[in-house]
Amino acid sequence: MRRLIGVATCACLALSACAHHEPPPAPVAPPVAHAVSAGEPVAAALPSWQDSAARAAILKFIAEVTQTGSAQYVPPEARIAVFDNDGTLWSEQPLPFQVIFMIDRLKAVAPQHPEWRRNPIYRALMAHDMATLAKNEKATLQLLEVANSGMTTEEYDETIRDWLASAKHPQLNRPYTELVYQPQLELLQILRANGFTVWIVSGGTTEFMRVFADKVYGVAPENVVGTEEKLKFEMRDGKAVLVREPGLDFWNDGANKPLGIFRAIGRRPILAFGNSDGDREMLEYTTGGAGPSLGLLLNHDDAAREFAYGRQPGSMSLDKAWDEAPRRGWYIVSMKQDWKTVFPASAVR
Amino acid sequence: MRRLIGVATCACLALSACAHHEPPPAPVAPPVAHAVSAGEPVAAALPSWQDSAARAAILKFIAEVTQTGSAQYVPPEARIAVFDNDGTLWSEQPLPFQVIFMIDRLKAVAPQHPEWRRNPIYRALMAHDMATLAKNEKATLQLLEVANSGMTTEEYDETIRDWLASAKHPQLNRPYTELVYQPQLELLQILRANGFTVWIVSGGTTEFMRVFADKVYGVAPENVVGTEEKLKFEMRDGKAVLVREPGLDFWNDGANKPLGIFRAIGRRPILAFGNSDGDREMLEYTTGGAGPSLGLLLNHDDAAREFAYGRQPGSMSLDKAWDEAPRRGWYIVSMKQDWKTVFPASAVR
Repeated sequence: MRRLIGVATCACLALSACAHHEPPPAPVAPPVAHAVSAGEPVAAALPSWQDSAARAAILKFIAEVTQTGSAQYVPPEARIAVFDNDGTLWSEQPLPFQVIFMIDRLKAVAPQHPEWRRNPIYRALMAHDMATLAKNEKATLQLLEVANSGMTTEEYDETIRDWLASAKHPQLNRPYTELVYQPQLELLQILRANGFTVWIVSGGTTEFMRVFADKVYGVAPENVVGTEEKLKFEMRDGKAVLVREPGLDFWNDGANKPLGIFRAIGRRPILAFGNSDGDREMLEYTTGGAGPSLGLLLNHDDAAREFAYGRQPGSMSLDKAWDEAPRRGWYIVSMKQDWKTVFPASAVR
Repeated sequence: MRRLIGVATCACLALSACAHHEPPPAPVAPPVAHAVSAGEPVAAALPSWQDSAARAAILKFIAEVTQTGSAQYVPPEARIAVFDNDGTLWSEQPLPFQVIFMIDRLKAVAPQHPEWRRNPIYRALMAHDMATLAKNEKATLQLLEVANSGMTTEEYDETIRDWLASAKHPQLNRPYTELVYQPQLELLQILRANGFTVWIVSGGTTEFMRVFADKVYGVAPENVVGTEEKLKFEMRDGKAVLVREPGLDFWNDGANKPLGIFRAIGRRPILAFGNSDGDREMLEYTTGGAGPSLGLLLNHDDAAREFAYGRQPGSMSLDKAWDEAPRRGWYIVSMKQDWKTVFPASAVR
């Protein structure tokens, strides 16, 4: 999160001109949960996926690990699948959506902070003065953190909920929760139908993602592993609460992702899906176990329907992991070539 | 853990004379999973519990929150029960068992560390020189941490597993995993039979507890929340592993327990069971929500069958939480008076 905020803030705060709008997608059939088994016809599985090598590998993997008696069989409790969120399950351009929320939050509370008017970072944020922000990454993040702290976790959750219910993406003109990827929703569903537990393991904060993960992805709060913000236990008006403090306790990205996985899950996953170098170690850890495993990376190469930035330099780049993929047998999924559709036809649930 | 190690190390490292042996317990029927509902006869529930106020409160609470349509009804996904481990689910005297393991580990690796022979802390540990250890709590802990680091988590888990399979409690003469409390095993079972998810939230380290929690308590690795040791992601021989480093990243005790709960579970529990002041904030948080809740504390007052230390000063003391209990409606469970039996009749599973 820290790195995403820093670099992305400077690159894209104007929220402008990163992509064409997607034409309204053709309606698609709702995904059907489908238990795969070896040898069974799988034509109906993953309907929004083209008949690609990645789709075939996913279906083969699911069939093998669920085949009782096979050498590749994995018992249900060990069928752990981990998914990055930003850029893997939903879009992350022009900025990770949580950063947009944090900026909106800062604007909302600004009237209670007249002292900010003399703060050069605040003024630069309001004026979209990228040059100043680029020179003051750390101070920018600190101001955003201050604006997003002081309240209880329960109060903050309510704010996130309200924002998600009303905010819309500046270019794609949809609520953020409708910028999830239809092919991935189908993948989550087929995994669960085959006994997998799906976890989100992302650089976004756990608290932010939990507000929508259950409703949008079917991922329960306890299966969300993210960056951890500082919290303090307090008694407020005689009630035990957790109060948000500025700063991070754990940054769940890069080489920290396997730590986040170990701490929350306690087992090595057997399937990991990411989209950037921040997911590299998660894939290395997942595919480094003794048994069968599958590593997948989404390449954002679809400027017409979403954004094309996967191989470009920057904090969201797919670069080192791209180079490593062939050696480790990871599949690179091309959004442009492997997905029939990108976003769901209509509101998610 | 840090506090427990420090104080307990100094008080009890000699592992001697803290309690009488328990006479071999009378065989008890294996606990029967029992779905409670309002008005149903509950005589068969919790067979190792005396017919006490605490038992009645537990059964009433379970009946109410599972009664569809009642004002107290709680949907299954929110039926979160959190249990401390040391002193709540199993014994913790003369030292938390994890500390005994760590000392045994230090002894086991000592031959590879000839440099320790000149280390005054090591010499004091070997000689049970309490005076020196008491004056050097921090250095004692650091040496234990060094002795328990350097290996991968997978290697360390194997060591814990081997130790649990062979080590026995110095006074009670049982494997440590048979020093779990029979009445609590019955409580875990009746909670699960009524749709609760049981979590362990303890000062012991997550990694240590996970090795036996599933087998002994039926608590899966992902439902164990504990103290977090420092870890480092590494490639060793081309394989992605997590390597243990000396030191702690998160100490899951006292006011940190609600943070550990929030981060791992993301919902406020509705039932909490502890035994010391280290559990006080966990109970405050659990019973501080808007809906129904139940707080329970185990008082170690049974020198004949286990140990009597609950109200004595020290790191494992039940003091502030004891004073707070009446005001918050928490139940104090007397091991001596409320439990018919303490330990299971024979090996757990």
